[in-house]
Amino acid sequence: MPTLAELVESGDIERLNDWLNETNTVEIAEELARLDPEQRAVPFRLLPKDEAIEVFEALDPTDQQALLDSLRDERVVQLFEAMDPDDRARLVDEIPAKVARRLLAGLSPWERALTSTLLGYPEDTAGRIMSPEYVSLRAGMSAEQALDKVRRAGRSAETVYALPVTDDQRHLIGAIGLRDVVLADPDQRIGDLMDPDVYSARIDDDQETVARLIGEANLLALPIVDTENRLVGIVTVDDAIEILEEEETEDIARTGGAEPVGRPYFTVSVFRLARTRIVWLFLLIFAASLTVSVLDVFQATLEQVVTLSLFIPLLIGTGGNTGAQSATTVVRALAVGEVRFEDLPRVVFREARVGLMLGLGLGTIAFVAVSLLFDLNMGLVVGLSVATICTYASTVGSLLPILAGRLGLDPAVLSAPSITTIVDASGLVIYFLIAKAVLGI
Amino acid sequence: MPTLAELVESGDIERLNDWLNETNTVEIAEELARLDPEQRAVPFRLLPKDEAIEVFEALDPTDQQALLDSLRDERVVQLFEAMDPDDRARLVDEIPAKVARRLLAGLSPWERALTSTLLGYPEDTAGRIMSPEYVSLRAGMSAEQALDKVRRAGRSAETVYALPVTDDQRHLIGAIGLRDVVLADPDQRIGDLMDPDVYSARIDDDQETVARLIGEANLLALPIVDTENRLVGIVTVDDAIEILEEEETEDIARTGGAEPVGRPYFTVSVFRLARTRIVWLFLLIFAASLTVSVLDVFQATLEQVVTLSLFIPLLIGTGGNTGAQSATTVVRALAVGEVRFEDLPRVVFREARVGLMLGLGLGTIAFVAVSLLFDLNMGLVVGLSVATICTYASTVGSLLPILAGRLGLDPAVLSAPSITTIVDASGLVIYFLIAKAVLGI
Repeated sequence: MPTLAELVESGDIERLNDWLNETNTVEIAEELARLDPEQRAVPFRLLPKDEAIEVFEALDPTDQQALLDSLRDERVVQLFEAMDPDDRARLVDEIPAKVARRLLAGLSPWERALTSTLLGYPEDTAGRIMSPEYVSLRAGMSAEQALDKVRRAGRSAETVYALPVTDDQRHLIGAIGLRDVVLADPDQRIGDLMDPDVYSARIDDDQETVARLIGEANLLALPIVDTENRLVGIVTVDDAIEILEEEETEDIARTGGAEPVGRPYFTVSVFRLARTRIVWLFLLIFAASLTVSVLDVFQATLEQVVTLSLFIPLLIGTGGNTGAQSATTVVRALAVGEVRFEDLPRVVFREARVGLMLGLGLGTIAFVAVSLLFDLNMGLVVGLSVATICTYASTVGSLLPILAGRLGLDPAVLSAPSITTIVDASGLVIYFLIAKAVLGI
Repeated sequence: MPTLAELVESGDIERLNDWLNETNTVEIAEELARLDPEQRAVPFRLLPKDEAIEVFEALDPTDQQALLDSLRDERVVQLFEAMDPDDRARLVDEIPAKVARRLLAGLSPWERALTSTLLGYPEDTAGRIMSPEYVSLRAGMSAEQALDKVRRAGRSAETVYALPVTDDQRHLIGAIGLRDVVLADPDQRIGDLMDPDVYSARIDDDQETVARLIGEANLLALPIVDTENRLVGIVTVDDAIEILEEEETEDIARTGGAEPVGRPYFTVSVFRLARTRIVWLFLLIFAASLTVSVLDVFQATLEQVVTLSLFIPLLIGTGGNTGAQSATTVVRALAVGEVRFEDLPRVVFREARVGLMLGLGLGTIAFVAVSLLFDLNMGLVVGLSVATICTYASTVGSLLPILAGRLGLDPAVLSAPSITTIVDASGLVIYFLIAKAVLGI
């Protein structure tokens, strides 16, 4: 079967139409995102309106923006009006202010008010991702009245499956699932049926916290309240999944020593990719220049025993790898909440013991191998260095991410590459001190 | 406020009770998981039955198992019976066969049948995570009849919000949300209301594929079918979130050069942590011994110009970091489906250009710095080496994960640490060849 790109290039509209008919919307969105931006308008225009909106919502905000640029204006407004307000806010966020104003102008006053309210909250907070299109109930309603309200207001709401319950001042006092409303006797009171121990988040809570709570408590939607516990919106589970994926991608980028680009891979230019990486590489190469100084200090030793230089890459590599292992473990445990700052002594002690075990194992192997291939003294130097560097690297690798988190940094920033570079220089000092002691130079 | 650990150690049951009353179930589960296993039974026994089940379900399967070990038998059976079948299957999976049989024996025949059916499917497949407790509709039903069926069967179902529709042979022919059933006229036919373009997955599909589809298509539940397209179960969005989190943790562990442990951090013994890491470290140190051979080959050159050894850590560090950046980017793009095997040439060409840009930038800086601090020739050697190694590392870093994926390996396996080690040895060869050419030795 030909790919979408081939079909677009061939210009065979009929076969393109066949392909669009046979393919589901998620796949269409994926294939669309993999085309060059200027190729995307043609297949998109061929979609029926309903399907076009589904495909559009399945795209990432940056791809949505690129698509909007390439479509004619009436079509843009149609699309924009059909989106959910929170998706719309996320899109507007990425669009130049001028374009954003033009887009907002095409909306009905009600739709525009929704989007603007959302836009008032800082980035990455619950306020920014919540939807104000929810259905809420009152404690005094009967189950039948509640079901009627769902029937009246449910068409445009983001979800009707998780229903927050409020008092007369819109204070959040409970929640109930549509299932319980449907299954109840028609005249039971919502106040008696609802769960009064309701999870909620504040409008200025971090979006990642909100998303993790939804995942851990198995919620379909989380009510969002203002400082006075008044209900202002809900965040749904599909948004939670998207946010978790974004946050993972960020963490992973930082773990690899690059700033997150926040866009799908093929939409980022080579130049921009290089820019997200060069700052880190520069910092790391600058830190690595410390290794040059260390070696410079020990140059006399190196000149006496050139064999010592043979093991430099192996030793710093092993130190870096051990440090990276413990750093990635700890960064992940911090991200999912298994480890917190107050666990620092316990974690560092654990990782130090892990490092010692690894060091003893690998050090013994290194001692035997180097003793056989070179001589007993070199074996002793390399074996002892491996053992010490492993213990040290594992300890530092667990310590730094936790401290970074405490200082309000993303722990992933002090992960593998930084740890490796830090361990490189100090590992060399350890190596040469051991060499001088054992070889008596 | 005292921590749970302090309260347990103090033995003050009254204050412990107060704490449990004030704390929500997710937090209780989190705190419980952070206690030593033998401390957990006391606070758990103090919980009212309903809350105990909620706390129990919020724990990871390994923590659940540890807790079961420490509770008396009747209580275990109670807990087990109250769990959803798919959660139960996941727990049984981690329990020794003998204990599993004893647990299954305590169930009602119906509950036991559910669990056993689930247990027949291979690990990490849709069959293993699906729930057979769903409510399905027939196309010929009216909306009113459908709502009646939800009322009758909905109490014990895993979800009633996403309702698969089947024909008389249980073939999946569509799906409908409870919202549309509630909002419809009572006598409209389900067959006219339902969406016939229904997403589904096969029982032997990989669980990660299933979870990603649920996330991308914004589903509350995905119908699972057998080879003949007959409905056998559903996977719900809360399970999808859990699976995605597990898979991320695995990827991240591999990115850091360790085998995933698949358990919360504090439940893994130091010895087991070391075991997940030593195999990788050993392979890496074995690969790194190649660097010793490379340096051995160039030992004459090194003896002539000892200054060359000063830049070894810096050069291989920079190569490793550049390779790690491109590898992590590509591994993540593969994981979320932005890049596939057929994109290989395009990706490698992109990353080669990124590497060249980075190399030119950093190489120039290195050239200037080393020329000033040492001499022009050394500056030239180091600058050229940085430029070449960056380009090379970025290319290799993108190539290997895609090839690994093609061979059916987890691309994360050929990520940062492996790339670093591979680039180390070849980077040294590049360095010494350039040095010999420039310095004429």
